Amino acid sequence: MSFNHIAIIGLGLLGGSIGLAVREHLPDCTTTGFDNDPDVRKRAAERQLADTICESATDAVKGADLVILCVPVGAMGDAARTIADTLKPGALVSDVGSSKSTISRTLMDALPGRSVIPAHPVAGTEHSGPDAGFATLFHQRWCIITPPEGADEKQLAALIHFWESLGAMVETMDAQHHDRVLAVTSHIPHLIAYTIVGTASDLENVTRSEVIKYSAGGFRDFTRIAASDPTMWRDVFLHNRDAVLEMLDSFLTDLALMREAIRAGDGETMFDLFSRTREVRRSIVALGQDDARPDFGRKDHG
Amino acid sequence: MSFNHIAIIGLGLLGGSIGLAVREHLPDCTTTGFDNDPDVRKRAAERQLADTICESATDAVKGADLVILCVPVGAMGDAARTIADTLKPGALVSDVGSSKSTISRTLMDALPGRSVIPAHPVAGTEHSGPDAGFATLFHQRWCIITPPEGADEKQLAALIHFWESLGAMVETMDAQHHDRVLAVTSHIPHLIAYTIVGTASDLENVTRSEVIKYSAGGFRDFTRIAASDPTMWRDVFLHNRDAVLEMLDSFLTDLALMREAIRAGDGETMFDLFSRTREVRRSIVALGQDDARPDFGRKDHG
Repeated sequence: MSFNHIAIIGLGLLGGSIGLAVREHLPDCTTTGFDNDPDVRKRAAERQLADTICESATDAVKGADLVILCVPVGAMGDAARTIADTLKPGALVSDVGSSKSTISRTLMDALPGRSVIPAHPVAGTEHSGPDAGFATLFHQRWCIITPPEGADEKQLAALIHFWESLGAMVETMDAQHHDRVLAVTSHIPHLIAYTIVGTASDLENVTRSEVIKYSAGGFRDFTRIAASDPTMWRDVFLHNRDAVLEMLDSFLTDLALMREAIRAGDGETMFDLFSRTREVRRSIVALGQDDARPDFGRKDHG
Repeated sequence: MSFNHIAIIGLGLLGGSIGLAVREHLPDCTTTGFDNDPDVRKRAAERQLADTICESATDAVKGADLVILCVPVGAMGDAARTIADTLKPGALVSDVGSSKSTISRTLMDALPGRSVIPAHPVAGTEHSGPDAGFATLFHQRWCIITPPEGADEKQLAALIHFWESLGAMVETMDAQHHDRVLAVTSHIPHLIAYTIVGTASDLENVTRSEVIKYSAGGFRDFTRIAASDPTMWRDVFLHNRDAVLEMLDSFLTDLALMREAIRAGDGETMFDLFSRTREVRRSIVALGQDDARPDFGRKDHG
């Protein structure tokens, strides 16, 4: 089986990119789209993020065999309840949320008797909204699918094939493990970046304009992450609380050790950590998950 | 006055870039270079990082009117003592170290009666060594000069002009203020990045290969910073201890507040911080200190 009609609910960075990627990679598929915000619908129609931009979520999902919820994590339950009675029998409901345990429960509670297989494409930029999407967002990026117990094998295979068609590499795992993996690879880095950018803006003896001026020494990379969508990230921390707190406490323990090494002038402990971490970087570049060029080819580099 | 003969001691990323930049921007200047490591000297000669690669630091500084020490912060004192007796009368000694209070004291103690004006070009990549340098590294980047009390005005003006000639924008401030500004814009971001990459490598319930695989969600940006030269960064934390601990404690206080907000499910506090930090990013992009393209134009983005 494969999907012929895909409904996209929420037309921001991810929803819009899915619409554009389907048109490019699955030209025989029909897409319908909806967003709660009329301005977003207008812009989505101009950019043709889906073949048809509908005026309601129920209109968008009518006849669809795959519905992908691309709304903030905190809005998933409402979005699912709105479409519950309109879904075509046998339709599969999926999503793109960054935390999976709570979303999985929320969707299954909101859609009793329906097929639900949550997914999370690990791809994004710091830009959001209907102008941010592009067709190649998922190329060579991982999409993690977290099938609930008893998920239909054929629908799972079709969902895997769908994401692979958009250029993604697919992995399946249980929702709880996903949440731990993402807490460390994504949620904690965002929390730290948001916090240090906040700290730097409020210092008494260094001005904000100095922080901005001299940001090329490392800080600017944190500001990119800390420019991500505030609503999305608030919802991530509200919904992946347990895994985030667990990983945050590991980080805080390690940071306290480094603080003590600095206080005590213990260069050996520092050198040991600073050497080990280079290896991780090499592996990421070797796996094609990042670019080895200095500063990723920012302008002004030779 | 301007400099006709520039000696570069240490031919890694910064020393090599200075040599290449002088050839491009100040073609009438002579450059001599030296590095303690014979392999680096060999590679520096092949890449012509300076007009003449010398076999000793004393050979390199003979007749130079500007000597720039481009060695790790912890090696500055030794480098200065080695050349002290060979310096031409009136020669200016400067450096490129990332912390300035202790270096300033170290250089003045090692070079009694000599002219010393420390400097710090805020530019770099995560690559190091004689292959890492390029002529445009300093273009549109800040160079902070920290003149000690009583520094010669003409030499200061010449040093400012030198860095501007290489494409840098120059600011002067006192060494202590420099150290606070850099602690927040560079040293703390590096410490945090090194620490989280270390934490992520050692988790019990998430494997290192999973961390590498799913790094595109934010983590990979930290790994780039955490791939910086270990010796250089150990020395930074050994030499800028006070400012680093001061800024680290501000960050830890703020992170504890965010931890509590997550624990308590306080979405408002999160949303407030996550919105404020976007502004800082916009200012950095507006000032030309970073690129607004998603992921700085990494491959696979449309």
